[in-house]
Amino acid sequence: MKYSFRNDYSVAAHPSVIEKLVSFAAEQNIGYGYDEHSNQARRLLLDKMQCNGDIYFLAGGTQTNMVVISHALKPYQAVIACDSGHINVHETGAVEGSGHKIITVAGKDGKILVSDIEAVMAKHTDIHKVEPKLVYISQTTEIGTVYSKAELKSLACTCKKYGLYLFLDGARLASALACSDATLADIAKYTDVFYIGGTKNGALFGEAVVITNPELKKGFDYHIKNKGALLAKGFVCALGFEALFTNNLYEEIGQKENECALFLKEELLKLGFKLAYNSPSNQQFIIMDQALAKSLEDDYGFEVFEELNEKELIIRLVTAFDTKISDCQNFIRTIMQKI
Amino acid sequence: MKYSFRNDYSVAAHPSVIEKLVSFAAEQNIGYGYDEHSNQARRLLLDKMQCNGDIYFLAGGTQTNMVVISHALKPYQAVIACDSGHINVHETGAVEGSGHKIITVAGKDGKILVSDIEAVMAKHTDIHKVEPKLVYISQTTEIGTVYSKAELKSLACTCKKYGLYLFLDGARLASALACSDATLADIAKYTDVFYIGGTKNGALFGEAVVITNPELKKGFDYHIKNKGALLAKGFVCALGFEALFTNNLYEEIGQKENECALFLKEELLKLGFKLAYNSPSNQQFIIMDQALAKSLEDDYGFEVFEELNEKELIIRLVTAFDTKISDCQNFIRTIMQKI
Amino acid sequence: MKYSFRNDYSVAAHPSVIEKLVSFAAEQNIGYGYDEHSNQARRLLLDKMQCNGDIYFLAGGTQTNMVVISHALKPYQAVIACDSGHINVHETGAVEGSGHKIITVAGKDGKILVSDIEAVMAKHTDIHKVEPKLVYISQTTEIGTVYSKAELKSLACTCKKYGLYLFLDGARLASALACSDATLADIAKYTDVFYIGGTKNGALFGEAVVITNPELKKGFDYHIKNKGALLAKGFVCALGFEALFTNNLYEEIGQKENECALFLKEELLKLGFKLAYNSPSNQQFIIMDQALAKSLEDDYGFEVFEELNEKELIIRLVTAFDTKISDCQNFIRTIMQKI
Amino acid sequence: MKYSFRNDYSVAAHPSVIEKLVSFAAEQNIGYGYDEHSNQARRLLLDKMQCNGDIYFLAGGTQTNMVVISHALKPYQAVIACDSGHINVHETGAVEGSGHKIITVAGKDGKILVSDIEAVMAKHTDIHKVEPKLVYISQTTEIGTVYSKAELKSLACTCKKYGLYLFLDGARLASALACSDATLADIAKYTDVFYIGGTKNGALFGEAVVITNPELKKGFDYHIKNKGALLAKGFVCALGFEALFTNNLYEEIGQKENECALFLKEELLKLGFKLAYNSPSNQQFIIMDQALAKSLEDDYGFEVFEELNEKELIIRLVTAFDTKISDCQNFIRTIMQKI
Repeated sequence: MKYSFRNDYSVAAHPSVIEKLVSFAAEQNIGYGYDEHSNQARRLLLDKMQCNGDIYFLAGGTQTNMVVISHALKPYQAVIACDSGHINVHETGAVEGSGHKIITVAGKDGKILVSDIEAVMAKHTDIHKVEPKLVYISQTTEIGTVYSKAELKSLACTCKKYGLYLFLDGARLASALACSDATLADIAKYTDVFYIGGTKNGALFGEAVVITNPELKKGFDYHIKNKGALLAKGFVCALGFEALFTNNLYEEIGQKENECALFLKEELLKLGFKLAYNSPSNQQFIIMDQALAKSLEDDYGFEVFEELNEKELIIRLVTAFDTKISDCQNFIRTIMQKI
Repeated sequence: MKYSFRNDYSVAAHPSVIEKLVSFAAEQNIGYGYDEHSNQARRLLLDKMQCNGDIYFLAGGTQTNMVVISHALKPYQAVIACDSGHINVHETGAVEGSGHKIITVAGKDGKILVSDIEAVMAKHTDIHKVEPKLVYISQTTEIGTVYSKAELKSLACTCKKYGLYLFLDGARLASALACSDATLADIAKYTDVFYIGGTKNGALFGEAVVITNPELKKGFDYHIKNKGALLAKGFVCALGFEALFTNNLYEEIGQKENECALFLKEELLKLGFKLAYNSPSNQQFIIMDQALAKSLEDDYGFEVFEELNEKELIIRLVTAFDTKISDCQNFIRTIMQKI
Repeated sequence: MKYSFRNDYSVAAHPSVIEKLVSFAAEQNIGYGYDEHSNQARRLLLDKMQCNGDIYFLAGGTQTNMVVISHALKPYQAVIACDSGHINVHETGAVEGSGHKIITVAGKDGKILVSDIEAVMAKHTDIHKVEPKLVYISQTTEIGTVYSKAELKSLACTCKKYGLYLFLDGARLASALACSDATLADIAKYTDVFYIGGTKNGALFGEAVVITNPELKKGFDYHIKNKGALLAKGFVCALGFEALFTNNLYEEIGQKENECALFLKEELLKLGFKLAYNSPSNQQFIIMDQALAKSLEDDYGFEVFEELNEKELIIRLVTAFDTKISDCQNFIRTIMQKI
Repeated sequence: MKYSFRNDYSVAAHPSVIEKLVSFAAEQNIGYGYDEHSNQARRLLLDKMQCNGDIYFLAGGTQTNMVVISHALKPYQAVIACDSGHINVHETGAVEGSGHKIITVAGKDGKILVSDIEAVMAKHTDIHKVEPKLVYISQTTEIGTVYSKAELKSLACTCKKYGLYLFLDGARLASALACSDATLADIAKYTDVFYIGGTKNGALFGEAVVITNPELKKGFDYHIKNKGALLAKGFVCALGFEALFTNNLYEEIGQKENECALFLKEELLKLGFKLAYNSPSNQQFIIMDQALAKSLEDDYGFEVFEELNEKELIIRLVTAFDTKISDCQNFIRTIMQKI
């Protein structure tokens, strides 16, 4: 295989992360996130966000979503999410496994609308139905789109109005920050809790949960351990965020990923391909002839996102911190030879 | 601080693990444990164990205990464990959080006796009580003791007789293998499921679950994801096991840890200290005057395991893959100067 | 108020049930369903169903659905249900609270189609998604429709093909039996587990769960207790089923309910009202002007099922074991006076 | 069998309860506890307790314990209970099934001591252990003893000091009220939530939960439904409490039960039998020769509480609302003939 566009977690870690790990590999640290690397990573993040949040490092995205949601809700309370939302489709029932219903809404372009929330609230008014209590969004969404600052603000207002928490899943936040006008500080301001993805943005593994709503801060450390999510060597995870939030590396990774993704998008449009979704970020969704897709598989990795019909499917191309424009050029060239 | 004997997960990873990671840091891998490093680690482990087990890599010990136990049991079924057992005391209710009662027994020397199991089974005979279904033991135990091969075999027979699963928590298995006559192959033979600890034995992080009982194999992959425990970059974890199970490194780590621990034990006995428990492994439990312990804290890290009375406490000294005899000698020398 | 068509659980119990209770009110019985009334009720039910099922008596419908589903599924497994299904809308997340995702399908006329199941199975093929394992249907459905024997048989075949359990919620089974060609014996034959509703069909309270699939029989008694659903005085509940299944009372109740419901339906159609759904059973869904509905509220109870627009809504009229044709005639007369 | 002293839930209901039920058997009521009988029962109870509590009627004791505890606690929080406590031994893991650890203490005479709570709090001080948050006691206890008003007050003070909720299980509260100086008003004052048992005190079935702590009031109605515990015909259950709390019937039942129990106790002591526990309430625990116990079984029902040795066992005799002194006399006479 020449290169895989299958996902953004194929490679262990960004060289700066590896370098940081190597340089501290012999050092003794305190366990469970009480160490100096975790504290330093927290300081770097809070500086960037200009907020007063509690920060915890967890191992992965599904885990983080489940831990945050089950912490925020009482057993009879539910999450509102897009029907395409990661927690609804790709997490093997982890949220329900922790005891909570996901109320799905259709949304638009992978994003929840204010009117979606209003409709849910209008229907959930007595004890025979769950009480909606948290809105789950992701930035970028499952189809690569992003919320603008204005959209986040509207959602935040609506949530406040109804007493709902707003939770943002930032698994692909680096890419989002590079193509939305919503900054990290905006996200910290408009949400009650969110996470900054590490796994898909160059860390060895791990996500940084940021809790800004004081109601949600209490007991979160206990809850992490209760769900089996407390890392003994928290510093191994935190080291990655230390590296990624030094010298704007996190932002650079997002920019570079998007640059590659937009190169692919434009070149494929030039070649006459159609987009399934119009994504500005590091995931591109291309409608492709099944035979062509099949013929590319030996040389390039990618995911079949959906079978459209007997002839066509949607492939997903994901760029990562290690993707080079030359990888994209080669991919385009290979396609040009086949069509 | 000169050296910390606080625990065996203070340092990122054994140099061989770091080296392996660095050498593959730029390589693209398939996600979720379907990659070649995971497969290679599985082969190395199965070779050593001479068994036909399914192997999965999870991020930490509490998580592994919770995922395995909640997979093995139906909601009305319970675990039998020592009252000192890690799942009962130090996991913030993770097992109960997944819905299962822990039936505790007193045991002896931190170990469950056949008679403990028999007594539990005699009492749990109708639908108003939970149905015991799994026996949880750890090797080494919470107080550093180990089960012999004969003891494991007896427990296994008793479990079989009552239709109980036997699950062994191997968080500190390297140390145990170096001081018990029970080999990895014996453990694979006598248990239904167990895990080989990585976090506390030189891996960056992670534990390798080995399922030998076919009843427990089905659906475990789904269950891992449902509990938020599936690692996207499974290969980062598996790389560690690849390194640790090459050239008997895992065994060597255990031997070296025990060597250091026994050096501490003997020297402290010579100095007139008493042991709280007679441990042959990498955890030593020393009864110490509170003032002396206090005076050591600036130079050496260790855990206060228990306050015995107003004058004395039990300190726990843990040796790790990076502990050197010279660290132990310095510690002994410091004590000698103070007494 | 002259009469309430709000639901079929407004009145304590059918006179025969009360009579049976009174006649045994001083008798000492064994607890927890091991008594002679429970056994007699079981015999009467099995006779009628011609099957070899295990029968348990639980207190209510939501409880029964949750207990059965959480018994049948492993944590990563999910239920397939109509989006209008009771478990999805009206149970305050009880099924999710027990840890399981509900995969919703649109269905047709409130009923799940074979093609719905096939579509779900086609999409759930890897460990990142829940594993569908049980199909939940109700007879009658939330909109009063019923599955025919042929439809049940098709669903059963499809379930068998995919290794899915078929679970039928018979909260309103008396009414269903009186308007579907599917008999109690058919239901016992085509499902793996189902329940015969008592609460909504003249019992003081309670539902009779019938488990025909041997896989689901084991441990159900323990599971009931684990979920807090074991009745100490099981005989008080069983007495009801003893009375209802003597002299075909259960069937008679269904017939009488339907007779009243169809009377309402026909008279309202004659008066020019439109039906929201074409129901053959004891729930009728009538599109009505909001002002008219409002004006009826003092004299008659009913539920507003849905607001259609600013002018119209759907009201639900439910007939019960105690409804008399004269109640219906009076209701119709009142309407005639108002339109 | 002449009479069964096996338990206090062998007979359907007290004649006054049956009579009340019969007199309202044809009446239409609102569902889910919003009806007039439920409201009337609430008024009667609040009058008696002189407090401002929220009152809910649930179907049984295990259910009530599980619903209350899982409502009060976050996932990482635990209950403190006597090791003999009903929730710890006789509820098939229902509390753990709802996700919570039970921390057991030895207690004295079946009762939790202030020092027990203090010891637990001293040990649970970091995130690796559960956070104790609720103390569960029962009145009467599993061995028939009762807390005095002074004891309740001390426990309440200790709970307040540590931020713990105090929850009292009143399954056998009628008997307790008749032999402790703690009144219903005292219990309402000193606990945060408790329940007044119906099932074991002459109701058809059901327990009345009284929540006095405002923190616990919010959302309890939703939580009941979420756990499958909401009764559609709440009025059937409430009717019982209406009857039991009219004309001091509840108190009378307790007095009469105790009168019979103490008669048994005294006569058996006169005959030279020894008590396993010194109970002032409707459960008596008698040490008896196995052969004698065996020989009584044809004529009298009772539970073997524990096998003491090869020769002796403890039998439990329970008196109920329907027990007559003549039943007790006959029992004593039968024994006299045999010894």
